[in-house]
Amino acid sequence: ILRKRVVVLGGDGIGPEVCQEGVRVLKAVAERFGHEFIFDHQLMGACAIDATGDPLPEKTLAACWQADAVLLGAIGDPKYDNNPAAKVRPEQGLLKLRKSLGLYANIRPVTAYDRLLEHSPLKKDRIQGVDMLIFRELTGGIYFGEKGRTGDGAAFDQCTYTREEIARVAHRAFHAAENRRQKLTLVDKANVLETSRLWREVVQEIAPQYPGVVVDYLFVDNAAMQLILNPRQFDVLLTENMFGDILSDEASVIAGSLGLLPSASVGDQIALFEPIHGSFPQAKGKGIANPIATILSAAMLLEHFGLQAEADCVKEAVDNALERGVLTPELTSGVPYTTEQVGSFIAYGV
Amino acid sequence: ILRKRVVVLGGDGIGPEVCQEGVRVLKAVAERFGHEFIFDHQLMGACAIDATGDPLPEKTLAACWQADAVLLGAIGDPKYDNNPAAKVRPEQGLLKLRKSLGLYANIRPVTAYDRLLEHSPLKKDRIQGVDMLIFRELTGGIYFGEKGRTGDGAAFDQCTYTREEIARVAHRAFHAAENRRQKLTLVDKANVLETSRLWREVVQEIAPQYPGVVVDYLFVDNAAMQLILNPRQFDVLLTENMFGDILSDEASVIAGSLGLLPSASVGDQIALFEPIHGSFPQAKGKGIANPIATILSAAMLLEHFGLQAEADCVKEAVDNALERGVLTPELTSGVPYTTEQVGSFIAYGV
Ligand SMILES: CC(C)[C@H](C(=O)O)[C@@H](O)C(=O)O
Ligand SMILES: CC(C)[C@H](C(=O)O)[C@@H](O)C(=O)O
Repeated sequence: ILRKRVVVLGGDGIGPEVCQEGVRVLKAVAERFGHEFIFDHQLMGACAIDATGDPLPEKTLAACWQADAVLLGAIGDPKYDNNPAAKVRPEQGLLKLRKSLGLYANIRPVTAYDRLLEHSPLKKDRIQGVDMLIFRELTGGIYFGEKGRTGDGAAFDQCTYTREEIARVAHRAFHAAENRRQKLTLVDKANVLETSRLWREVVQEIAPQYPGVVVDYLFVDNAAMQLILNPRQFDVLLTENMFGDILSDEASVIAGSLGLLPSASVGDQIALFEPIHGSFPQAKGKGIANPIATILSAAMLLEHFGLQAEADCVKEAVDNALERGVLTPELTSGVPYTTEQVGSFIAYGV
Repeated sequence: ILRKRVVVLGGDGIGPEVCQEGVRVLKAVAERFGHEFIFDHQLMGACAIDATGDPLPEKTLAACWQADAVLLGAIGDPKYDNNPAAKVRPEQGLLKLRKSLGLYANIRPVTAYDRLLEHSPLKKDRIQGVDMLIFRELTGGIYFGEKGRTGDGAAFDQCTYTREEIARVAHRAFHAAENRRQKLTLVDKANVLETSRLWREVVQEIAPQYPGVVVDYLFVDNAAMQLILNPRQFDVLLTENMFGDILSDEASVIAGSLGLLPSASVGDQIALFEPIHGSFPQAKGKGIANPIATILSAAMLLEHFGLQAEADCVKEAVDNALERGVLTPELTSGVPYTTEQVGSFIAYGV
C-alpha cells in the first residue's frame, strides 16, 4: 500500500478538463488497489499570470518539491502569442519548472494503435506495428542558453551542452533500449554543429557499457524523413532539446491523434507527466477534449511509482475504451462521447 | 539568343551521373532555342578533398564567380561520416560555397504529382493538390555562428541573425507569395528563441509592403505536424536555416520520391541549382539514380536566366516521362529505365 502526493497543474484551455479525468482514473486505481493518493491543485501558465502575474508562482514550485510527482494538463493562451513584446509568457513557467525540478529527460512513447490506423495521415502499411520511445533532452541546449540582442539590433541564442548533460539522458535512453528491442538511434547534426559532435562523442563513449544495444546515428534532416518513410525502424530515439521538440511532435502524427499521446519528464528527484497536446483554447469547456493522453500520462506516473500492475490496468481500460468505440469526436464519425464520459468509462474499467 | 556560362559541380556518389543528364537537357534546350551554354566542370566535396585536400578548392570558387549559374549534383561520402574527429569534411565545402557566393535564399518547391501519389507514405486525400514553396535562409543562423569547446569540455554553437539577413530572404518570400496564392507562413520558435522573436518582428515590419499577402505564424514543432496533417494549407513557407533544413526534408516525403525535388539557392549576384537528394554512394555507377530532380533544377536555372518558355518546355518533357512511365526503379514495379535513358528521353522531348 502506497501513500503518494501528486501536484496537479491543470493549466490553461482544456488542461483542467483532461486533468480532471486523469485524477478520476488515479482515484479509481487508489480505491481498487488500496493506495492513498493526495492531490494538490496548483496554478501554472496563463491562469497563473492572470491570478498572480507570474506563470510559475513560488507557491506552485514549493508544492511540486513537496510532491512525489506532478500531473500537468497544458499551458498557453493565444493572448500571449504573436506578441513579441510580451514580457511574461505562459511558456516561461513551463521552462522554469523543467529547469527548477531538474527534469532533464522527456520521454514520449509513440505507438500506432491498430484500431486507429485509419485516422493517421500515413498509409497503414507504413505505420502498423510502430512502437518507439523518444528521449528528448529537456533542460539544456538552445532553450536555456544565453540569449538577447546586440547593440546593432541583431539577436542571438546560444546552444551549449556539457558532457554530463548529455551522459545522464543518454544513460536513461540506453537503459530503456536494453529493456526493449536493443536499438538506439542518436539524432544530431554532427556534420554542422559542434554540440552535435559532442553528443556523438559522449554516446560513443557510453555505448560499450550497453553491449547488447546497437547504436545508430542519423542527421536530423534525414531523421525527419525517416520518421515518415519508415517509422518502424526506430526503437529508442535519443536527441537534444530543440530537435526533440520538432521530431517528437512530427512523430505524433503517426498515432492518428494527438489526443492519445502521453509523456513523462523525469529527473533524479521528481517526475512530471503530461499529455503532449496543447491547451486548445477553442475547445475549452465543450467536453470534446480527448482525456486519453492525460490518462496514459497518469499510467506512466503509476509506473514511475513502481506500480506496474496498476499501470497495466489503466492501459487495458484505455484499450477497452478504444475497442468499444468510447471515443471523443475527433476519433469517430459515430455519436461521440464527452471528455467526462470517456474518463468515467476508463475509471470504471480499472 | 543567350550566351551563358554554367559551372557544373558533379560532386560525389550519384552526383556526376545526375548532373550529366541535367547538362544533356540544357544542351538540348540550347540547341532547340538557339542559345549558347558553356559548361565548366569543377571539383567540390569528397572528390575535391581526395584530389586536392580541400572540399572547395580556390579554383572552383573562382570558376563559380566567372559563371552565370552553378549546377550541383550532390556531395558527401560515408568515409567522412561518424568520424567526429575528421578535420576536413565534404559539407564544409558546400557551406563555404553558399557563404562565399552569398546564396542566402534556398528555395524548394514541393509538389504532389498526381501520377505518383501512390508512392507517397501519406494518404492520397491529404496530399493531392499540394503545391508549396519553401524559403529557407541559407547563410546565417546556427550554421555559421561561432562554435567550439570551452575549457571544461562543453561544446557550444551560437545562433545569430541580423535584421538584414532576415529582411532580404523575407522580401524574396513575400515577392514569391504575391505571384502565387498570396499566403506566407513564417515558421519559428518565438515562444523560446530570441532570434525567432526578431524574425517575427522583421516579418511583421515588412508585411505592410505586401498588402495582398496574408501572413501566418507557426511554431516549428506545430509546423512539423501540420506539414503531414494538412500540407495543402501551405503556399509559401519561410523559415531560418536550421528549421528549414529539417522541414524541407520532411516536406519532401510528400512528393513520394526524393528523386523528383529540385532546389535553387540564390543570392544577389549568382545562383546555384541542385537536386535535394544526397550523394547515395550505394547507388553510384549503377544507372539507377533518378535524374529528374537535377533536370528540374536545370529548369529552375533556365527560369533564373529569364527563359520561362524554355523552362516550361523542360517541365513538360518531365511530365511526359512520368506519364509514359519512363521511370527509374524506385518509381516503378515494371521494367525500369536507366538514369541515362530517362535523361535522354527528356532531352529528346524538349
Ligand atoms: C510550450 C513550449 C515551450 C514547449 C517546448 O518547446 O518545449 C512545448 O512545445 C513542448 O514540447 O512541451
Ligand atoms: C550537407 C548539409 C551540410 C546540408 C545542410 O544541412 O544544409 C544538407 O543537409 C542540405 O540541406 O543541403
